[in-house]
Amino acid sequence: MGILRLAHVDVVVTDLDLATAYYTEVIGMLETERDADSVYLKCWDEPGHHSLRLVYGPRVGFDQMSFRVERESDLDELENAVQRYGFPVSRVSKGDRIGQGESITFQTPSGQVMELVHDIEFVGRSTARVNPSPVVEGLKGIAPPRMDHVLVTCEEVGEATKFYESVLGFRTTEQLLDGQGHQVATWMERSHSPHDLALVTGKNGGLHHFAYWLDDWDHVRRSADVLAYNGIQVDVGPTRHGITRGNTIYFFDPLGTRNEVFTGGYRPDPDFPTITWTEDNIGRAVFYYEGDLNTRFMTVHT
Amino acid sequence: MGILRLAHVDVVVTDLDLATAYYTEVIGMLETERDADSVYLKCWDEPGHHSLRLVYGPRVGFDQMSFRVERESDLDELENAVQRYGFPVSRVSKGDRIGQGESITFQTPSGQVMELVHDIEFVGRSTARVNPSPVVEGLKGIAPPRMDHVLVTCEEVGEATKFYESVLGFRTTEQLLDGQGHQVATWMERSHSPHDLALVTGKNGGLHHFAYWLDDWDHVRRSADVLAYNGIQVDVGPTRHGITRGNTIYFFDPLGTRNEVFTGGYRPDPDFPTITWTEDNIGRAVFYYEGDLNTRFMTVHT
Amino acid sequence: MGILRLAHVDVVVTDLDLATAYYTEVIGMLETERDADSVYLKCWDEPGHHSLRLVYGPRVGFDQMSFRVERESDLDELENAVQRYGFPVSRVSKGDRIGQGESITFQTPSGQVMELVHDIEFVGRSTARVNPSPVVEGLKGIAPPRMDHVLVTCEEVGEATKFYESVLGFRTTEQLLDGQGHQVATWMERSHSPHDLALVTGKNGGLHHFAYWLDDWDHVRRSADVLAYNGIQVDVGPTRHGITRGNTIYFFDPLGTRNEVFTGGYRPDPDFPTITWTEDNIGRAVFYYEGDLNTRFMTVHT
Amino acid sequence: MGILRLAHVDVVVTDLDLATAYYTEVIGMLETERDADSVYLKCWDEPGHHSLRLVYGPRVGFDQMSFRVERESDLDELENAVQRYGFPVSRVSKGDRIGQGESITFQTPSGQVMELVHDIEFVGRSTARVNPSPVVEGLKGIAPPRMDHVLVTCEEVGEATKFYESVLGFRTTEQLLDGQGHQVATWMERSHSPHDLALVTGKNGGLHHFAYWLDDWDHVRRSADVLAYNGIQVDVGPTRHGITRGNTIYFFDPLGTRNEVFTGGYRPDPDFPTITWTEDNIGRAVFYYEGDLNTRFMTVHT
Repeated sequence: MGILRLAHVDVVVTDLDLATAYYTEVIGMLETERDADSVYLKCWDEPGHHSLRLVYGPRVGFDQMSFRVERESDLDELENAVQRYGFPVSRVSKGDRIGQGESITFQTPSGQVMELVHDIEFVGRSTARVNPSPVVEGLKGIAPPRMDHVLVTCEEVGEATKFYESVLGFRTTEQLLDGQGHQVATWMERSHSPHDLALVTGKNGGLHHFAYWLDDWDHVRRSADVLAYNGIQVDVGPTRHGITRGNTIYFFDPLGTRNEVFTGGYRPDPDFPTITWTEDNIGRAVFYYEGDLNTRFMTVHT
Repeated sequence: MGILRLAHVDVVVTDLDLATAYYTEVIGMLETERDADSVYLKCWDEPGHHSLRLVYGPRVGFDQMSFRVERESDLDELENAVQRYGFPVSRVSKGDRIGQGESITFQTPSGQVMELVHDIEFVGRSTARVNPSPVVEGLKGIAPPRMDHVLVTCEEVGEATKFYESVLGFRTTEQLLDGQGHQVATWMERSHSPHDLALVTGKNGGLHHFAYWLDDWDHVRRSADVLAYNGIQVDVGPTRHGITRGNTIYFFDPLGTRNEVFTGGYRPDPDFPTITWTEDNIGRAVFYYEGDLNTRFMTVHT
Repeated sequence: MGILRLAHVDVVVTDLDLATAYYTEVIGMLETERDADSVYLKCWDEPGHHSLRLVYGPRVGFDQMSFRVERESDLDELENAVQRYGFPVSRVSKGDRIGQGESITFQTPSGQVMELVHDIEFVGRSTARVNPSPVVEGLKGIAPPRMDHVLVTCEEVGEATKFYESVLGFRTTEQLLDGQGHQVATWMERSHSPHDLALVTGKNGGLHHFAYWLDDWDHVRRSADVLAYNGIQVDVGPTRHGITRGNTIYFFDPLGTRNEVFTGGYRPDPDFPTITWTEDNIGRAVFYYEGDLNTRFMTVHT
Repeated sequence: MGILRLAHVDVVVTDLDLATAYYTEVIGMLETERDADSVYLKCWDEPGHHSLRLVYGPRVGFDQMSFRVERESDLDELENAVQRYGFPVSRVSKGDRIGQGESITFQTPSGQVMELVHDIEFVGRSTARVNPSPVVEGLKGIAPPRMDHVLVTCEEVGEATKFYESVLGFRTTEQLLDGQGHQVATWMERSHSPHDLALVTGKNGGLHHFAYWLDDWDHVRRSADVLAYNGIQVDVGPTRHGITRGNTIYFFDPLGTRNEVFTGGYRPDPDFPTITWTEDNIGRAVFYYEGDLNTRFMTVHT
């Protein structure tokens, strides 16, 4: 009941062909559909229609983040909850959006547009449903099995976190506090993973990055190899987070949206107590090996 | 709502000291408590009181499998559901069992005793809750982060699977069918992993193995190193399953209960269609690299 | 000065097309040349013309093992040494064999035909000589970087080892002794690796297997994946040797010659003392994880 | 014949206790001996007396690099060769230096003191010589199996390289050329590895870093974990070199000497053609993932 996981990320790109080439050849996603202004892509182990929508626009930006709910009836309940909190909600009818049925959308206190949807079109994984080979051949580039999480920026992290927790049922796994005990960043989950959604202090409505899941540290190396081979400069990594304990690389797509590949971490029960980081530990918290942050990492987002 | 995951496995051992030595020194679990007839153990990344209870008894066997539910009120609902299905349910009061509160127990159609519990004592992971190091030092042996799943045996897999699905809300991720289309083995989940509970044809009430989670293939190798160093002969592996796609090693504790270390696999949504294996593919389904089963694997259980 | 390393293995196959398909598609070697009765193949990181020659013949078997010497003049010295030991030596003129210059050949006390050659045709690695990418794209199958070693069978291991040591300068890194202290298997090196050539008791002139180098344990897993995907059943592994400490998989090509993929081990100085294994430890010595040998492994060779 | 490999690195430290604590607890070397002004350390898989000597002195610096030769008689030949080249050579008698016999020392054109020695005291690996376990327990910290190479600085790389090649028999595997075709850095080997000794433009006599071998990429991660856990900030990495193709981390010991952990690369024959890098590719050549060099990496050495 309620939100299951991140369904898809919709980003605005200024060059649809360049972006598609990158996400299919370097990341290794599969193009599932294309319409007038958008390209729809999925990872090989995702059964749904798409986990990334590239939307053409004049300025690179973040269009929306879409989360999947467990039941169709969750839409009504969450629509009411969001409205009670004071935010208007729009209904999107079945047929209006490619690859999915009815959904609701609203702007969140952190300034992003959020969509909730249950009915997604199942196009199937890249493996058979009868006697499937566990090995998949013919993939390109990094070929992550699935999308993992999204990190967005907002002015008031504490306030926004309260919304995500109390209205949408997110659970805060980790938080970074400033000297006054205010949240400057939070990591929240619905899928029993370290995070499905994270907030960091910045402009309202911004996207810091979205992340793909990798299966292990060796896949992190192969990702770095693929990136370098294709002339994509890494932003940070391969390294490790103190927060989530995961291993990671950050890098930018050719139009300037930050991507991450991520693996590792724990599997919390819903009632597991939140882990707290204090600001004097921010270096190790974010990049455990380096022990400090580069300026670009803190200030660049879309 | 409903079952979250496997909470603990309770096995009967004929030598409590020998079993405890093995599970702490070779597996690397931490002993959390000991009473007249039992030793309680947890993995380093598990916050709960124990995930394994070793119970002294005159014959090696399977005492019970305990699953955690999301809310206290789930106990009432599931108690009613089990009773409606025609199986008597007992209530265990808070204080009667170490490390947990109230619970319900019942025998399942597959012949095992199953416990459901919400209230477990949180003793904490081996990491701090404020500014935790992602690296944990001082662990022994294999040191898996957590328990993963249990595979039990029963005479009528199809019938038992129906019970676990319809009464307890398990979702069947994979099934193995004989030539007549009957289920001879099923894999079921509640925690969005490939399996929390699996059934294979055999005697009613039996335990085929319980499994620890490992973080990656390198941890599989280190596990094999630790086992061999300690003179524990592997049963099968390191190898890979076609079913679940995971990497694995099987081996026996010194008293004859089969253990597994397991990593990999996918993260299904609740409505993801079941994968089907046909009996002519059983070799690759179970051990993808070998392509066939050894007799010991099929016939030995406790 | 003297022997550098294994240059190429020449095996007789009864179906040249089938063998070539396997060694190019599953192993991922590159075909460099083909003549009336042979196909020549190299690994991607080998600069020489070939490291495997498949020779057509009516019965699967071992044609010869060819080792490279450091200088052209080593051929004269080693020719004399072999002749002094009492074995006739033939000269092969430049132009008589594809991909290499002059060589000498002779039958060894272990019954195999051995070739020594210095002048090999350099066709280049699959990487550039100016600003090469460390990442190589477009490889197929397992894609090992290079050939590693060969293990042959003979009736009198001790006697043959004495020949390889005293005449050809091999150094014995490890030996397996029976209860009377006689060598039943030896591992010898020239390239500062655990072994370039090994002998095990069996028929004279036999080939137990030849082995490819892999870079790490993850490459071992990917090899097992590739083998299983292509329907090649593993013989043993993934596992680890006590001897050499390396990780390994054994399997057969479609015509029955045993292959190995191997990684790990130490880098001995020429004067490092030989490691001794006693027969009561043969199980762990050969397969550290299993602790015993399967019959097929001991008795099947070509 | 000739130089086999790097035997030991001797560095001057201003605090012998602090340095020893770091090299035993964080790196995980074993202390083999201690005298008035020095501590001798070896890696667990090295049979020789020491591969690192820490010498007390008032200023951190590079005392000498010592290479092992294959035969005692190589000392005479190389002494003559160095003298013919115009550099004075000193003989060090057996008994004068701990853990080794007679040696020769001389200053090289790159300004470092170089020692050549054959007779080293064998204290044994941390594994038995009869029926050794491939698994070694009880190691601390990173626990690299052995020392790998040394990179030193000098004003005239081309001239110094000529000395190492023509007088000492080093073979240049890779070279970095400036726009005029002059060598600004070279990588040279004697042990059939990518490099035993490398030169980079800088002050004469300087030490840029010495490097430990790791077995694979997973050991690179565990090294980064150990460093971070112990509060050692990484300089660069985990990353990959274009040159050598190896994976790497750079970091500093507590007194300011740069260390590296390194794995991967190829195994060249002595006559393999040198790989050339042009200065416009220096970023990818040195750090393949980042594509550029940090200033600290280029300018800090001891």
